Amino acid sequence: MTAPAYRRLTVEQRRGQLIGHALALFAHRVPEDVSLDDVAAAAGVSRPLVYRYFPGGKQQLYEAALRSAADRLEQCFDEPAVGPLIERLDRALSRYLAFVDEFDTGFMALLQGGSVVGTSRTSAIVDEVRRDAAQQILRHLEAPEPGPRLRMAVRTWITAVEGASLIWLDEGKQPPLAELRAWLLNHLVALLVATAADDPETAAATRRALALERPDGPVGDLIRRALPLAADAAHLLEPAGPAERAEAPEQAGAEPGGDS
Amino acid sequence: MTAPAYRRLTVEQRRGQLIGHALALFAHRVPEDVSLDDVAAAAGVSRPLVYRYFPGGKQQLYEAALRSAADRLEQCFDEPAVGPLIERLDRALSRYLAFVDEFDTGFMALLQGGSVVGTSRTSAIVDEVRRDAAQQILRHLEAPEPGPRLRMAVRTWITAVEGASLIWLDEGKQPPLAELRAWLLNHLVALLVATAADDPETAAATRRALALERPDGPVGDLIRRALPLAADAAHLLEPAGPAERAEAPEQAGAEPGGDS
Repeated sequence: MTAPAYRRLTVEQRRGQLIGHALALFAHRVPEDVSLDDVAAAAGVSRPLVYRYFPGGKQQLYEAALRSAADRLEQCFDEPAVGPLIERLDRALSRYLAFVDEFDTGFMALLQGGSVVGTSRTSAIVDEVRRDAAQQILRHLEAPEPGPRLRMAVRTWITAVEGASLIWLDEGKQPPLAELRAWLLNHLVALLVATAADDPETAAATRRALALERPDGPVGDLIRRALPLAADAAHLLEPAGPAERAEAPEQAGAEPGGDS
Repeated sequence: MTAPAYRRLTVEQRRGQLIGHALALFAHRVPEDVSLDDVAAAAGVSRPLVYRYFPGGKQQLYEAALRSAADRLEQCFDEPAVGPLIERLDRALSRYLAFVDEFDTGFMALLQGGSVVGTSRTSAIVDEVRRDAAQQILRHLEAPEPGPRLRMAVRTWITAVEGASLIWLDEGKQPPLAELRAWLLNHLVALLVATAADDPETAAATRRALALERPDGPVGDLIRRALPLAADAAHLLEPAGPAERAEAPEQAGAEPGGDS
């Protein structure tokens, strides 16, 4: 009972510990620059011990680490279907972006591909995370079996979230995470509205989502801030054909100073 | 003067011809499944002749083909700065999506990385195309030196265009190309408006762009179609705090049946 703590770890605990150290190293260096020796050193164990748990060596450890990261990413969007939709997605996105912030270089290597340890199997895991996130968001939109346009809108937004996350890392983590998160949610609302313009299913899903929002919530805030811009587009609401009335129609619902 | 036509090709013409055949093959098969023999057969020349023009073999031919594809993609967004902005981008996007439609499998392989012939050099070429497209769009927005939020919005939209193109290929090229294009443009308008809500520079650029649009153009159409949805969100325009007036404010400018 006086044996060192590491001797008492189960196989799963030891594997989990090594994966954790590998993930921590991938956060600052691309996987090809992380050796098994690095992982062994970080864990305070010998290289042969790492091989005992991962006989396939670096590739197997990398895939196990990726699997672990994917599980964590999939949990991000696992959010109870109660309350305003955007608040639910705000919590999900908060977890996702915390992962991006922490995993950093590893996240970039994972999504940008071209890694020497990237394989069709690792691509499949990344695709699985994307599909899972889309399915979760569609569940929140109460459209688990969506038509092609709503499905494309949600899948495209997920691509945009990934892309913006990479750009955010590339720009030295600017703007602050909370602003990035709020902007990505505004992006989703805007994309749903734009898609709803031509797709009744998306319109119905968007209506259901908007009905759950509160005036003091982020969507109400977005609409109040966007309205002054809509007022400037009033000339576009003229009937098609040569515009005869030059006066902009009265702008409805906009509070003066609504952009505060 | 009776020598076969291929003997009269200049070095550049011959190289261009071989690149063209390689690109055509990449359209239906991933680069790793295209051999130099395949390219030689498609061009009706011998394998040694291919090597004469590309001594680096397949990797050199692949990079030359990628360079050629990148040049064509960069030309897509080279559009005169006259007329409504969305019509300019519509023409640019039309060229871009024609490329996606034609290049197909090669486009997917190029963007998804993980190709055995993908290198940091090929990644750099793809990034250059993205940067160039962003710069061109910012030029059309009259913001060649944008702040971080407008820059992120444009870069993220380019990521979304790429992502939607891949999803479109994955979904068997549905919806029709013209609908995809119109939706991507609506996406850009929506994203600019959502970004403008919190960023004065984006607001100014969006105002300038909207001022160029015509009532019978795509943006006018989008706004008219989106307005019924905005009317359903009228409860969000109540002043923050407990809502006292339950009546939705009069919705302005919306044409009855505006979603036709």
